[in-house]
Amino acid sequence: MPTSPPVYESTLFTTVAAMQAEADAARAAGRRLALVPTLGALHAGHLALVREARDRVGPGGHVTVSIFVNPTQFGPGEDFEAYPRTLDADRDALDETGTVDAVFVPTVEAMYPFGLPPFATVAVRDLDRHLCGAHRPGHFAGVTTVVARLFLACRPHLAVFGQKDAQQLAILRRMTADLGFGIELVGHPIVREADGLALSSRNAYLSAQERAQAVVLSQALRAAQAAVARGERDPAVLARAMEAQVATAPLARVQYVEVVDAETLQPVEALSEGGPSGGRYLAALAVFFGATRLIDNVTLRVGEQA
Amino acid sequence: MPTSPPVYESTLFTTVAAMQAEADAARAAGRRLALVPTLGALHAGHLALVREARDRVGPGGHVTVSIFVNPTQFGPGEDFEAYPRTLDADRDALDETGTVDAVFVPTVEAMYPFGLPPFATVAVRDLDRHLCGAHRPGHFAGVTTVVARLFLACRPHLAVFGQKDAQQLAILRRMTADLGFGIELVGHPIVREADGLALSSRNAYLSAQERAQAVVLSQALRAAQAAVARGERDPAVLARAMEAQVATAPLARVQYVEVVDAETLQPVEALSEGGPSGGRYLAALAVFFGATRLIDNVTLRVGEQA
Repeated sequence: MPTSPPVYESTLFTTVAAMQAEADAARAAGRRLALVPTLGALHAGHLALVREARDRVGPGGHVTVSIFVNPTQFGPGEDFEAYPRTLDADRDALDETGTVDAVFVPTVEAMYPFGLPPFATVAVRDLDRHLCGAHRPGHFAGVTTVVARLFLACRPHLAVFGQKDAQQLAILRRMTADLGFGIELVGHPIVREADGLALSSRNAYLSAQERAQAVVLSQALRAAQAAVARGERDPAVLARAMEAQVATAPLARVQYVEVVDAETLQPVEALSEGGPSGGRYLAALAVFFGATRLIDNVTLRVGEQA
Repeated sequence: MPTSPPVYESTLFTTVAAMQAEADAARAAGRRLALVPTLGALHAGHLALVREARDRVGPGGHVTVSIFVNPTQFGPGEDFEAYPRTLDADRDALDETGTVDAVFVPTVEAMYPFGLPPFATVAVRDLDRHLCGAHRPGHFAGVTTVVARLFLACRPHLAVFGQKDAQQLAILRRMTADLGFGIELVGHPIVREADGLALSSRNAYLSAQERAQAVVLSQALRAAQAAVARGERDPAVLARAMEAQVATAPLARVQYVEVVDAETLQPVEALSEGGPSGGRYLAALAVFFGATRLIDNVTLRVGEQA
């Protein structure tokens, strides 16, 4: 007789102290804890992270999803105020997965008890020089600080992040390892629409026409992968090919197109098997459609891993 | 028949992972964990912190003493190389207390796995503008970063610090509360020699003549307390009185003498019951004897607390 998987009823936590007490109790019970940090406005990509988290900790484990639209990672003129807030729908979606123990939805005051800007910040140097970091000053300091706070509040053994924010994941990996959090970071592959568009809460901002043309991001990245497979090793050539692909969409405006080492996130002269990351590179781009900024990326592999 | 208190045999840990495993096991066993972070060269002041830690967690608790001469909190020209390293004597002294479970002595490589300067740093703004922070650029960023690492490695419920480093303690309190570590910080009163000199590992640098004159630091601070008791409320007057007292020692050279709010560590126009800390102020000074820099401080209380 087949047994049904357990169904978890999620409990809402809104203060750091209550969340820590929940985490400590779960740890004391010998459970393995996973955290999926989100800004809410959950879509199928987020739910894939949640299922990955459950798979990793097993049926006896403990899965927390945090929902917090963090003001300090939005710059002036960015969409902090407009960012979609859909808490009821988010909780329903999480409960439908039947796999979440705790939902952590702190207020801004709970996360920043001394107000904003916070007194204490966590920063990672150098890895924010290129890609989004070059265009969103202060963004990654906001991200590392809030994720450190979420790690301290939720005390997980592992945390799952989407690879769509590849630079964020690389920076958080560095932060976690360098400070010695003792937390395993799991990167989950980008979840895409049928036409290749990476899922994003910001896709909701797109007009029908913009949505149709937004396919050029993933097309450009696939073109770069194909070029590498054909032997192209010049990052400038790859970038120009991606730009040309994006230019086929009249409504698209490129913010950046870059190819960098996958770990150091620094530009390279040429792709090779001997780079810092052993032949792994990141092709990434940010493209505006009107006021909506979309990002996407792929890993380029050179050599035996390819 | 009286029962003897338990005697704890300390175990040495040198890697972050091993220390975390020890802490997790102690937490899983329901024990309360205390950490006493030190730079080694232990003296009676440190041992008082260790006994305070044991008192706080009780006989069933778990006490870790960390010993790490942290390179990133020493500036160029400071005494990082010369700082006394007396690990064998330190371990003997800790074992003689019979109250330490774990001694954490990480290598520089264990604490900074990506080398120096670290990629990830933890900083607290504003509270480092005055006192030592004004004279040791980068010092407190080094302190907050290494203490965050020690907290993450040792996972204590509480940590005990000496009040001799009053600015350090105030900054660490802010860091701990703002990032939400969920760790209680305990400040232990300054332990002094019979003549009033605050115990310090750096006292070992003093010549006999300097040692005799070093009594002026605590004399100056007591003079400030007496002046406040007589009704003096002008921080400039208090500072001048302290400077005059230090000037009675021919070998002394003042680096700073300041009176600041005890929590914000900012200067004030006048001492009052209504300040940010409710009438608590910090009188602090740093004085050189030759190349040896000594610090000391007292709390000035105004109003009902006085």
